[in-house]
Amino acid sequence: MSSLFLDTLRGRRGGRVPVWFMRQAGRFLPEYRRIRERVGDFFELCRNVELAVEVTYLPVRLLEVDAAILFSDLLVPLLPLRSMEVNLKEGVGPLIELKEPLDSPKKLLHSYCVEEELGFVGAIVRGFKREHPDVPLIGFCGAPFTLLSYIVEGGSSKSYHRTKRLMFERPSLFRDLCDRLVDLLVDYAVMQVSSGVDAFQVFDSWAGVLSPSDYRSFIFEPTRVLIEKIKATGVPVIYFSTGTCGCLKVIRDYPADAVSVDWRVELADAIDVLGSHRVIQGNLDPSALFMPRERLKERAEGILLQGTRAKAHVFNLGHGIFPDTDPDRVRWLVEVVHHFTP
Amino acid sequence: MSSLFLDTLRGRRGGRVPVWFMRQAGRFLPEYRRIRERVGDFFELCRNVELAVEVTYLPVRLLEVDAAILFSDLLVPLLPLRSMEVNLKEGVGPLIELKEPLDSPKKLLHSYCVEEELGFVGAIVRGFKREHPDVPLIGFCGAPFTLLSYIVEGGSSKSYHRTKRLMFERPSLFRDLCDRLVDLLVDYAVMQVSSGVDAFQVFDSWAGVLSPSDYRSFIFEPTRVLIEKIKATGVPVIYFSTGTCGCLKVIRDYPADAVSVDWRVELADAIDVLGSHRVIQGNLDPSALFMPRERLKERAEGILLQGTRAKAHVFNLGHGIFPDTDPDRVRWLVEVVHHFTP
Repeated sequence: MSSLFLDTLRGRRGGRVPVWFMRQAGRFLPEYRRIRERVGDFFELCRNVELAVEVTYLPVRLLEVDAAILFSDLLVPLLPLRSMEVNLKEGVGPLIELKEPLDSPKKLLHSYCVEEELGFVGAIVRGFKREHPDVPLIGFCGAPFTLLSYIVEGGSSKSYHRTKRLMFERPSLFRDLCDRLVDLLVDYAVMQVSSGVDAFQVFDSWAGVLSPSDYRSFIFEPTRVLIEKIKATGVPVIYFSTGTCGCLKVIRDYPADAVSVDWRVELADAIDVLGSHRVIQGNLDPSALFMPRERLKERAEGILLQGTRAKAHVFNLGHGIFPDTDPDRVRWLVEVVHHFTP
Repeated sequence: MSSLFLDTLRGRRGGRVPVWFMRQAGRFLPEYRRIRERVGDFFELCRNVELAVEVTYLPVRLLEVDAAILFSDLLVPLLPLRSMEVNLKEGVGPLIELKEPLDSPKKLLHSYCVEEELGFVGAIVRGFKREHPDVPLIGFCGAPFTLLSYIVEGGSSKSYHRTKRLMFERPSLFRDLCDRLVDLLVDYAVMQVSSGVDAFQVFDSWAGVLSPSDYRSFIFEPTRVLIEKIKATGVPVIYFSTGTCGCLKVIRDYPADAVSVDWRVELADAIDVLGSHRVIQGNLDPSALFMPRERLKERAEGILLQGTRAKAHVFNLGHGIFPDTDPDRVRWLVEVVHHFTP
């Protein structure tokens, strides 16, 4: 399919800059909260094909963003694993309890049939594309470091010290675990693509806790393989991370079509490192949605202006929208982006 | 006084690179844990002049680091405030409960007599310098953003969204709060210097959650004033922050003698931005102390080699030592640094 969003990801500048938001189908939307209340459990909603299609479409209808992202969670590919219990606690985040030791990667991350176990994800993708064939749909999965960090820490963390400790103390085990995760994630991503997603984002939300040299030594290669194999399916791939300003020289070497950066770096500085042949995505601080309108407009236009230095630019936040954000402000920001002319 | 550490901070390269560690007098030392158990409450230990002097000296005696840092806590200058209750919960961190609303800065951050309320800090400094006149002693305080974030969040946070929301929604209140904090912090720092500290570090541990442009607009000026006023007392000042790779162009403009950076940026890249006229401090990942010795040595020497590009270099971690660290490994690292010749 062709669309402003997909053309931009492929490096073609259209008349305007496309925009979508991380966590755009989330708790800040009252329409989402109502659906979520009806279902109760978060993962139940992820498994409910009809409602997940509806939720995926919500921000396109309400905010007029240029792309939808599959309603799901980074942890979904861990749900079929008998070796761990995965829960999401409201206001706390993921909680993972291991039933197998970390040092048996094949037991911990055993193979499973993705169509059988996670067929609902494929069904959501097909359902969405049937109802909304003209809306570009982004599929996604976690990057090996980020997903492994949830497993090692038993959830999220401030320092990710346990994950790094494992990486430093038992580097070959760490590599085996990453490689096993990549195997599972490739199957999962391929299923999303064959079900119909038009683009794919790899979320490396916590890679920013690594030094550039550890990033290069420990996680570059498995992440590169994951990106390469998703790219081989034919869809454009976005690599997303946060706090990785100092690692951009490494990230530059990924075969990703676009690189998403967060607000901790000036977009222009990121483009200087990544190269002007690269499509860039980003990079508004989600907290900036609480600025007065005029200041927010100025900030967004500053980002858009810097974005003109890249091959092409997809406007986005640097991380997910906070639940206390005013949907009107988000809708208004979409208009600001759409009306921008450099 | 003169010492390798102080000479280095003043930009003179000695025969070797001095080293100290953030949180070097902490839970990773069994000697510290024994003292702490005797006292119980953490702030009680901060107030116990004799024991605090002993704890401050522990890492000099046990690890042979080149400087001691006052045993205390960033939250100590908040303890005399009647407007808040400050606690430290083991394994969780600080918990702050406000009894006055944020929007009355003069009530929330009322003036107090620092010699009367925090005289124990001066006594620790004097006690230490009396017992160990040849050991350089570093005083410290939090930077306005970092300290304010504890107050606004009620402790530490992952996103610091509440603090940023306040900053964006009520910028003039945010500035007033920062200015009030600077007033308190200057008094506190001046007392430390007049009691005898030889150098001073300003901890801006959480400034890395800001975009470079918000860093410049909102926190540069109050932080600059704080640094300038401490510097006016005659001691060299180190500005410490983490995750601020993208803000180094702003940080460059501080009148600080040295800038401490974390492992998220290559030291050489940081020096490129900060300028080779600057003293640099850093930047080993504290988790890297779990690497096998040979790899750790290689890593430390890589950092030391990059440090030769700066005017002078103080070796340190990018943040505090983790409690599960092996003291033998830390002592060994001190030797590695001391034996390094470029």
